Order: sequence, then C-alpha cells, then structure tokens
Amino acid sequence: MVGGGQGAFIGAVHRKAMALDGQYELVAGAFSSTPEKAKASGRELGVADDRNHADWQALLADEQRRDSSDRADVVVIVTPNHVHFPVAKAFVDAGFHVVCDKPLVHTAAQAEELVAAVRQRGTVFGVTYNYGGYPLVRQAREMVRAGELGTIRKVVVEYNQGWLATRLEAEGNKQAAWRNDPAQSGGAGALGDIGSHAENLVATVTGLEIESLCADLGSLVPGRALDDDANMLLRFRGGARGVLVASQINTGIENGLRLRVSGTLGTIEWWQEEPNRLTHFPIDGPARVLTRGSPWLHAAAQRASRIPPGHPEGFIEAFANVYLGVAAAIRGEGEADYPDVEAGARGVRFIEAVLRSAKGSEKWTRVVA
Amino acid sequence: MVGGGQGAFIGAVHRKAMALDGQYELVAGAFSSTPEKAKASGRELGVADDRNHADWQALLADEQRRDSSDRADVVVIVTPNHVHFPVAKAFVDAGFHVVCDKPLVHTAAQAEELVAAVRQRGTVFGVTYNYGGYPLVRQAREMVRAGELGTIRKVVVEYNQGWLATRLEAEGNKQAAWRNDPAQSGGAGALGDIGSHAENLVATVTGLEIESLCADLGSLVPGRALDDDANMLLRFRGGARGVLVASQINTGIENGLRLRVSGTLGTIEWWQEEPNRLTHFPIDGPARVLTRGSPWLHAAAQRASRIPPGHPEGFIEAFANVYLGVAAAIRGEGEADYPDVEAGARGVRFIEAVLRSAKGSEKWTRVVA
Amino acid sequence: MVGGGQGAFIGAVHRKAMALDGQYELVAGAFSSTPEKAKASGRELGVADDRNHADWQALLADEQRRDSSDRADVVVIVTPNHVHFPVAKAFVDAGFHVVCDKPLVHTAAQAEELVAAVRQRGTVFGVTYNYGGYPLVRQAREMVRAGELGTIRKVVVEYNQGWLATRLEAEGNKQAAWRNDPAQSGGAGALGDIGSHAENLVATVTGLEIESLCADLGSLVPGRALDDDANMLLRFRGGARGVLVASQINTGIENGLRLRVSGTLGTIEWWQEEPNRLTHFPIDGPARVLTRGSPWLHAAAQRASRIPPGHPEGFIEAFANVYLGVAAAIRGEGEADYPDVEAGARGVRFIEAVLRSAKGSEKWTRVVA
Amino acid sequence: MVGGGQGAFIGAVHRKAMALDGQYELVAGAFSSTPEKAKASGRELGVADDRNHADWQALLADEQRRDSSDRADVVVIVTPNHVHFPVAKAFVDAGFHVVCDKPLVHTAAQAEELVAAVRQRGTVFGVTYNYGGYPLVRQAREMVRAGELGTIRKVVVEYNQGWLATRLEAEGNKQAAWRNDPAQSGGAGALGDIGSHAENLVATVTGLEIESLCADLGSLVPGRALDDDANMLLRFRGGARGVLVASQINTGIENGLRLRVSGTLGTIEWWQEEPNRLTHFPIDGPARVLTRGSPWLHAAAQRASRIPPGHPEGFIEAFANVYLGVAAAIRGEGEADYPDVEAGARGVRFIEAVLRSAKGSEKWTRVVA
Repeated sequence: MVGGGQGAFIGAVHRKAMALDGQYELVAGAFSSTPEKAKASGRELGVADDRNHADWQALLADEQRRDSSDRADVVVIVTPNHVHFPVAKAFVDAGFHVVCDKPLVHTAAQAEELVAAVRQRGTVFGVTYNYGGYPLVRQAREMVRAGELGTIRKVVVEYNQGWLATRLEAEGNKQAAWRNDPAQSGGAGALGDIGSHAENLVATVTGLEIESLCADLGSLVPGRALDDDANMLLRFRGGARGVLVASQINTGIENGLRLRVSGTLGTIEWWQEEPNRLTHFPIDGPARVLTRGSPWLHAAAQRASRIPPGHPEGFIEAFANVYLGVAAAIRGEGEADYPDVEAGARGVRFIEAVLRSAKGSEKWTRVVA
Repeated sequence: MVGGGQGAFIGAVHRKAMALDGQYELVAGAFSSTPEKAKASGRELGVADDRNHADWQALLADEQRRDSSDRADVVVIVTPNHVHFPVAKAFVDAGFHVVCDKPLVHTAAQAEELVAAVRQRGTVFGVTYNYGGYPLVRQAREMVRAGELGTIRKVVVEYNQGWLATRLEAEGNKQAAWRNDPAQSGGAGALGDIGSHAENLVATVTGLEIESLCADLGSLVPGRALDDDANMLLRFRGGARGVLVASQINTGIENGLRLRVSGTLGTIEWWQEEPNRLTHFPIDGPARVLTRGSPWLHAAAQRASRIPPGHPEGFIEAFANVYLGVAAAIRGEGEADYPDVEAGARGVRFIEAVLRSAKGSEKWTRVVA
Repeated sequence: MVGGGQGAFIGAVHRKAMALDGQYELVAGAFSSTPEKAKASGRELGVADDRNHADWQALLADEQRRDSSDRADVVVIVTPNHVHFPVAKAFVDAGFHVVCDKPLVHTAAQAEELVAAVRQRGTVFGVTYNYGGYPLVRQAREMVRAGELGTIRKVVVEYNQGWLATRLEAEGNKQAAWRNDPAQSGGAGALGDIGSHAENLVATVTGLEIESLCADLGSLVPGRALDDDANMLLRFRGGARGVLVASQINTGIENGLRLRVSGTLGTIEWWQEEPNRLTHFPIDGPARVLTRGSPWLHAAAQRASRIPPGHPEGFIEAFANVYLGVAAAIRGEGEADYPDVEAGARGVRFIEAVLRSAKGSEKWTRVVA
Repeated sequence: MVGGGQGAFIGAVHRKAMALDGQYELVAGAFSSTPEKAKASGRELGVADDRNHADWQALLADEQRRDSSDRADVVVIVTPNHVHFPVAKAFVDAGFHVVCDKPLVHTAAQAEELVAAVRQRGTVFGVTYNYGGYPLVRQAREMVRAGELGTIRKVVVEYNQGWLATRLEAEGNKQAAWRNDPAQSGGAGALGDIGSHAENLVATVTGLEIESLCADLGSLVPGRALDDDANMLLRFRGGARGVLVASQINTGIENGLRLRVSGTLGTIEWWQEEPNRLTHFPIDGPARVLTRGSPWLHAAAQRASRIPPGHPEGFIEAFANVYLGVAAAIRGEGEADYPDVEAGARGVRFIEAVLRSAKGSEKWTRVVA
C-alpha cells in the first residue's frame, strides 16, 4: 500500500474492504509522504519492519528483489491524486497488479500512457470507483443491459455533500487541504473528488458515452482555490440527455449521491444513502422496490451480496466488492467485476472536458474525439 | 369561469379549490371553446341558463351589464394558454378581478401589457402557480426571508413526470394535444407546462432573480412538436448557482416536483409528492423534519393549514390557498398571499429566455434586462 | 348539523368535506350545546336565521314541519359522544338520513336500538370512520377481497398520537376535556377516540371478525381519568392473530395510524400520514408501491380519487369520500361505499369488550356472542 | 470457533465481523457436528490441519494443552442452540473467553449456572445480540440514559420477517429445520430466534425491566412444530407499558426490526433496515433525524462508527462492534460495550416466561422473581 497512513481517511476504508472477505493480506507499504510518518503508520498497522518503507521507491525496489513466493501481488495506491501517476506507472511497468484511487491521474495524456502500459504488461488494474460495487448499482446496470428500461433517454445524477460549505482547508483539515490544492488534486475540486464518481456511476449503469457537455463550475465559498460546485448538461451519443450536479457546499447534506435513469419502458432511482434499495418505475405498473439479496435480482447483483435481504450492507461492503473483482481478475476468473484502467482514463477525459467547457463561452464542448 | 368544461382537467380542480373554504360561488361561465360544449358543461355544473354563455365575449358583455350587486367579482381563466391573453386583458380592462392559469401569456410583450392594465385598473390578478400554496413551501420561503439558511448559494429544482413518455398527443388525449400544439401552448412544451411551475417555486422560495441561464431543450419522443425535456443551468443575481430540470418523459414518475435550496447555514428539501414535510439540514445539528400545522412554523405557513399536523392536506388544499389569497386581496386584507400578475410576467420572460438560449450556441443567455 | 360550532374541531372538517364535491349544502343547524354559542356559530356559517337553532330539538321540530322540498335530507351529528344517541335516534325515528361521528354511542344496547331503528325506517346512516375513505385503504380492502394476499394470518394496527402526552384536559383544552370526561366520552379515552378508528380500519380492510381479545389499558399521564394508552392482542375468527395499539402519549407523534396485514401470499402496509401510497410485499417478487389514482388499482379505489396520481389528496378528501358514499346511498346507487350503522355498532361492541377485558384477570375476553 | 461450517449462515457473518477491524484471527475450530464436514469446513477456511478438529471436545483439549502464547483467547460458539450450553460451560470452566450466539441456552437454570461460572472464572463472555451494536441503537440508549426522553412510558418493538411464511423446514432448508426442531432450538421458534433480539433491544435501549407479560404464541403455518408468530403485552417495573411482536410469517418482509420508545419528553424510532438513522420526536420541536457518525451524537455512538456520515454502515459493522466490545473487555479496557452473559441469562428468563404465559389462561405472568 502506498499512502493511507496517519491522518488519511480512505486508506483505512481500503484496508477494511480488503480484510472483510479474507482475500487480501497487508504485507508491505510506504504509508506516507513523510518518512517518519510512513514508518510510524506501518508499525501501527502491524507491517513487518523490513517491509515498512519510507517511500514508494524503496517499497518498489524491495518488492522487485523478492522471490515471487514472497512478493506482494498487488499494490494499492491511496495517495493524494498527484502521486497516482508516477507510482502507478512504475508498479505497472514492474509487472505488479495495481488498485488505484480515483481520479486516476491528472491528464488524459498520462491516462493514455497508463492504459498502454497496462495493456502491454497484461496486468490487472482496478480503479476504486467504489459506488459501482453496490449490489443494486449492479442490478441497475444489468437491467439496462437487459433492456428492461427500453432505450435510455434521460439521466440525472447528483452528488451533493456539505462538508466543504465552510473553508475547512484554511482550518487545518488535511482532507480539505489537499483536495483544494491544485498541485495535489489537479485543476478539479468537487469535480474531481465526487463529480468523477458521478460520471463513473452514469457510465457504469447506462453504458452511455458522453458526447458533449456544457459545464458551470463555481467556487462558492469565498477564497477557495478550486470548484466546490459543478453543474453540467450532458448529451450522450445516441440522443439521450443528462444533467450532472456535484457540489460540496450543500450545507448539512452528508453523502448524497443519487441517480435517476429514464428509458422508454421505465425509470430507476438509486440513492447511495439508502443503498440497499433500487426503485423501479415501470411504464405499465406500480413502482417496484428491489432490495439487495433478493432472489429476483440479476445474477451479477446477487453475487455482490454477502448476507440475506433486510440485513443492510453498506459502503465498506461495496468497496470490498471492487476488491473481490480485482482478486477474481488476478486469479483469471471470467466474471471479474471491477472498474478498470479504461474506466479511469475515461474519467480523466471527462474532467478535462469539463474544465475546458467551464472556461469557454461556447455552449457545447465535445468529450469524445 | 372561462374554460374548464367537459374534457378539461384543471377546471374541476379550480372549482373544488374554490368550494373548499366557502369563499367562492360559481355563478356564471363560458366553459368551452365550442358553444354547444360550453352550454352543456355549464348545465352540468348547475349554472343558471342566463349566465351560461357560449363564449367569453358573451359572458363579459352580460356581466358588464349587470348591477354590481349581481355581478361576478372574479373571472377564472382556465383555457388553453393561447386564450389567456385576450380574455384576461378584456376582463381586466372591464374592471374585473382575474384568476388565470399559468403560464400567463405567450410573450413578454403581452405580459407587460397585462401588468400595465392591472396596475392602471387596480384590480386583483392571481396566477395559479399553485405549488406556492403548500404550507411548507411558504415555510421554506419564510425561512429564507428570516435568514435561517444564511446566504443562498445553490438551488436545484426538478419537475419530472412520465405521462408524456409516449406520444399521447397522437392518441386522442386532449390534455396532451393542446400542450403539444405550438399554436395553443406557445413555443414551450414541458417548459411551459411544468418548467414554469419550477421557475415560480424557485422565485417564491428564494426570492432570487435569474440573471442568466443556459438551456438544453429536447423533444425526446419521436414526432413530438415541442420540448418534453428541459434542462438548464442557472446563475442568479448575487452569485448563487442553480439547475432546473423539467421533463415529462420520466417514465413511471407521477408528479415529481422537488426543490433543494442550500445556503451558508443550511439546506432545505421539499417534495411535492410528500408535501406535508419539509426537511431542514442545518449546518450545526441533525436534520429537522418540519411538518404542516406544527406550532413552530412561521405564521405564514401556519395560516395556510386547515387541520392539525398528521392529517395530510394535499394538492387541492394548496390550490385553495391561492384562492384564499386572492379573496383576501379582493377584500383588501394586508396579508393576501398569492402569486400576482408580476409573477406571471416573470414566468413569461423566463420562458422566452429559455427558448432563446436553447436555439443559440452561446453558453449564457441573459434573463434580466 | 348538530354540534360543530365555535371551539369545535371536527365540525369544520365535516363542512369542508361536504363542500368539496358540491353534493351537500349546509341549510340548518343547532351548532352548540349553549344556545348563544349555537346561534353565533350558525350566523358565522351563513345559516339563515330561521334555520339556526338553539338546540337540536328545535332543529328537529322545525325540519319536521317543513315541506319535503324545503327540508334537510341529512342530519350530521358532530357533538361530543354522549349526545350521539338521543339525537341520532330522534332523527332516524323522524325519517331523516344521518351522518354521525364515531364512536357511535356509549353502549351496545343503544347501538342495537339504533340499528333496529335504521332498519325499520330504511334510512341511510353513515358513521364517519373517515380513514376507510382513503383510496388506498379501499385498494387494500379490494386486494384482500380478491384474494391477492391469500388467507390473512396476521394484522398489526397502531394508532399513535402524542397530543395527550401532557394533561391538556387540565389546561383548558376543550378537545382534551370532553374526551377525558367519562360522562361525555363513555368509559373509553384513547380507546374510543382512536382505538375505534383502528378497529374499523382492520374490519374494513380484512373483513375479519374479532373473536376474542386481551387488553391492557393504561392512564399513563398522572391524574388522567381515562385510558391514554391501549394495547391488545386479538384473535380473529378463522385463526388469524392480531395486535392493536392505540396511544395518545407518544410524545411528538402526530397522527400515526399504521396498518400491516399479512396473508399467505403477501403483506400490505399503509400509513395514514403518507396516505397516497400502499406498499404491497408479494411472496414471489419485489415490493410494489401502489399510488392513488393509478390505472392498475381496483375500481373501488379508482373511484375514490379526484385528481391524477402524484397530486396528493389528503384527510379532507378521504372524509369527503365517506360523504360521497352517503350521498350515493341516499340517491339509491348501488355502489355506495361508506361505513354504516352496523359498522358503528360493531365498534361499540368492540369498545365494550376491551373495557371488560381490561378489568378482568382472564387472558381472553370474547367479543362475538 | 465451534460450528459455522458448510451450510451454516451466521458463522460466516461472525468471521467477517471479526476480520473487519483486524482484532481477531481465526486459528482453530470444530466447524460442524459431523466430523467430515467439520474438517472440510476448516480446510476451506484455511485453518491449519492440527487445529482443525472433528468435534469441540477435541478442540478444547488441544487448546488447553497449548502454551498460552500459542493458545486461542476466545472461543466463538455459533452452533444450533442446544449445543450452546455444554460448549460454553466447558470453555468457561477451562478459562477461555467466549462469544456465544443467542439465545444463550435453553433454560434459566443453565443460564444461572453459566453466569455463576463466568463470575467465578472472571472471563469475558459476550452474547451476540448484534442489533445493540448499531451506532444509533447506542445513541438511543445514551439518550434514554441522559434523560433526553424523560421518563419512559411506552415501548413498542416489532421484529417481523417473512421467510418462514411457508413450511421451509419440510423442504430441506437447514436454517428452517433446526430452528423448528424443539430439541435443537428449545421450545421457542420465532420467539427464540428473533423475539429474543427484540427483548434485548428493548432492554439495551431503555434499561427497563419487564415485570410481567401476557403472551399469545401461534404456529400459523400448518404443520409447524413451534411458534412462528409471537405477540405480547408488557408491563415494566415502574409503570411503563409495552408491546412486543415477533413474527416470521409476514410474507415478503425481510428483516423488519423496529423500535419505538416514548417518554414524557420525546419519542424515538429506529428501524434496522435503515439503521443509519434514528428519528427523535421531541415534545417541543420538529422531528430530528440523527445519522450515524454525526458530531452531535453521544460518545458511545460516535465510537461505534468507522466512516463518515452518509457512507452507510450495516449489519456486519454492527456485528463487528460487538466483537470490538468483547476485545476491549479482554484487554481490560473500561469502555467495553457488548452484551454480556447476564444479558443472555435475562433473555432466557424472558423466553421461559413467555412460554409459561402462552400456556396459561391468566392474563399476567411475572417475569422477575
């Protein structure tokens, strides 16, 4: 693991997600950008001294020199965004499988380079767009694929949070600080942090490609360096329309990711804060509330559950499903279900297109080539 | 009453709303554009023969010649949109109070003419933007006015329906037919029918003025003459941002009008389909669920209730609140609470701006002068 | 109308419910037990002086002497409970149709007398168990009748309120005062006020007959004369089991009437505070959310709606549906749908059985003969 | 671990709950009552051959002979109920800490024996009443303790499921089979399986002691050996009243555990299927929706969360909280928060009292001595 040490948030989530199903073991790491903090974090996590490194270069060197029986299979990258590219590229080039946090990298050029490297080495590369790990998101995807909603016409996705409604980055909050530092997070604030999740959720569920978009990015908290409010109109290849909202200044809102997809035969709604339900509004009958674990779900959704319906699974379980998908891919199983490096690259192209649109005065900015 | 006869939908709602509180009596009308249908409708409604007219001109002439003690106080206009202007103008000029359905008229020029006429005659003119009649919408408005949300930064309003997910207008549905006939409904489809409600709801609750907007209008059902899907980005005077979605192709969705307003101190959410609740997310404590009729609501919200909390009031009651406001205004009471001709004119300007934006390739279209 | 004058609550609800659909006109009344208040109330309501009476005896006498063309068709009794019997009996005996509030009367003997009188005179007698007027309660009833839930096995009904969590009756609250005065309300407090609604809801939806019950009545607010908390186990003829809870000391709860009915093929849940939805859990598929006005509802539920799905109807509309049923019955229509005097009598027998059970130490008290 | 091998349900939940926070390692076991299945299960779970035993006696013997540095600290008992007592007793007597599933044992006498043994040996003994592990259940408990609801007057708890709405035990379902076999599950069916959870939830949150109860147990599915529907009235020491419903024939309902507690100052509601919210209805203001992880929760509730509000935690996380409590107790930490052997014994006494009540014709059966 690279990053995720003291003061980090998402590293611990990754570790719990890995632990849950007993398919991963944390054996080595370079857990912080500060050598002392890195070492201290590793000790706390019970990593053996000789595999607890001061920086990722040392980790890579050490793993490379180990015998295959003793070597880590996968490296997990949970650093601030700007570190993703060099670390991911180096480990892929060295033949390691990788799990990397989103957004993948800062530029589409880096993303393409990474995609090429993964292709060349034939390694597994997962990007932790974790919301696609929820069983009912997978159900939604399968319903679309099976044509149960007919032709998709309209997509509305909102990802609202309130935690950046004040200027936390000026008050010593580490999470807020790096996210609002253009050097560490890329040029995108809320857009990169949560807008990218929204984009991936739409792509995962609908399979639609955003053809062009029209974006309005705002920094509504005075003094903030990056966007904290992102709104955009979407046009998908094939004619569907959409709206994407990502905002971190919705005071009092916790983690309000909501998706609505309408097709000619029905509409579905899913809310991350109540993730064990998916509401389906068919054109010819009453709304149906699909619940996690039910026998009438599609197989891909069923497989993503651990316990019976009515026994809620949550965020960590969904996250763990991404890890299960990566593990299945590493074992070469056919049904590995996880967001790959291409999904990560698509997310980077999306962010770039939004940034271009937000700066321009033209209504529509093309996303696809 | 002009319009609202056989085959109409909203006319009956107006009549029930008027009846509910015993402040209105239906005494005369010209209930349809077809003379025979007009007369038959009036007979069904129990209107006396000598006040049941074949057309609005006859109604106006008859009312004008009556003694003031025997004359109708108010004319209610519930025709398709293109008839609003001539009827409204004629009755205002003749000194009658008017209640007119939305959108008010087809052009901003007509709207200005009407505003001027109302000002000159000093009559009461209500526009049935009925959603502002819900007690908890009034509570939301009062909370904003009282500063309980701080400075408003973000507004998201969605009005989704599914009833036009198929081409009903080609299947003999009268409601669908006139709404999708540009000559009768103006150039706006979903935009005029429900987008205008969304605009009014935002204006009512936030008091913010839309400075510029960027709209995407689609006719997603093949063969449809007008928009059935309207999405737009909003910028308000003072810096707040917004998104407005109005769509009638959300298959399976009934009457999904939802509003979220975020300020520096809190966020509120209101859903028309569960109108007796308003959720308030303050920055410094748990979400609060405000319910209709509660003693801790603002006075304007309290006044809009008839029965105790927990005994649901609905659409008709909200509609009736608009009528109560108009009645209070006619009686010259200070606290008359209803959307007036200026609100109607603002709605028309909004529609015009959206139509301009949708046709152009510039990102932003100014709404205000 | 008898009762329902100044200071009353439910009288105004009755009047709005009558006004809503234009099938009733208030022509005469004796609106209070105090002559002056009765007259003042009548004047406020716009009742003509010669039909605005000081007491119900005068009202009855005056109506009896009128010509049938000028006589009231129906008398509405909305007094405190102890007045129901003499008034109802006198009007029925005089051949008037009656609408009477619940609980019908104080004793099963009175109830039987009234049932006999109604039968003899062939008049229409409605009891305003208004919750059965909700369209989705009627849908529930029709689903049970049509066998869609299979054989009913279990019923849980709760009616919780919080308004009597303090001793309001000692603080000048008129509604609380008469309800907690045994002389006016009978020996039942919460049991009579809301438990009776719960009983009727169960009977209406399931058609099951309570065979025996085991009740625990408590007066949990110190100093209260009657029960404010009623809990009971139910056994229905045929083997189904049930639980009924009626409590007015659920601090902060508004009007929490909730019903769950489980059969061999499915379960339904309905909540009065969100009355436009009925959730159906079939044994072999996902939960279905049935909404008011939908085309797939049973005809009896469809008929009980005025406006399209998604446009909420509420308490007053449900109340008005009872009035529509009574009006249909008076007109001799086949499909008159309202709770009749037999339903009222059954409610009185239920209350008597609960009071017996609460006093005894035997587990089971029979309700049926 | 004893039990929890192939074909079991809850064993896997225990293992995931233990794995989640990295404080437990599965080192040894006797995973089934059939030696071959026991061994096969252990191999699947990656347990070393020499610690993978054919029966619990062998496991105990082996662990006892190991050096303390190499010996398991805790034994987890997840067998059918009838095996709990001998295993638990033997391991406690041998000085091991124990985690045991509920209901603890079959008789109050066994329970007392176990309590005495635990006291004598001073070991830690946790009972996996897992619902008390939910952060918002702990919040509810702390609110009651802090007096925020005032004096508790009323408790309604329902635990409804539908999975036994048909006679699954006759169709080869292992979970259904042992639960409906009196020899394995004790004399209690739904009562023991889920009624015991409901009892513990009430005791945990309110701290109230059930003084007497009146129960109705039914076997509503024809041919079923044990109760599948349990309803009872409760009277608590101090005067509060209650109702407890536990039913496994609520067709279509998944895991519907719901609690409502009303006091003089407010009411709280918690639903297991939406466990990240607790609704609080104070007497003097709007309902408040408390969410997991919020800074305004009580410390004990805060400590039970792993991730920020809005990122749902679920059943496994709650289960894991019980394990964290046991681990803390083993480490001798002051704030160990878990249901202990006394809670288990109280649950057994409750079940015995219910069985007595159900057989008798007296209304009230005393629970406490």
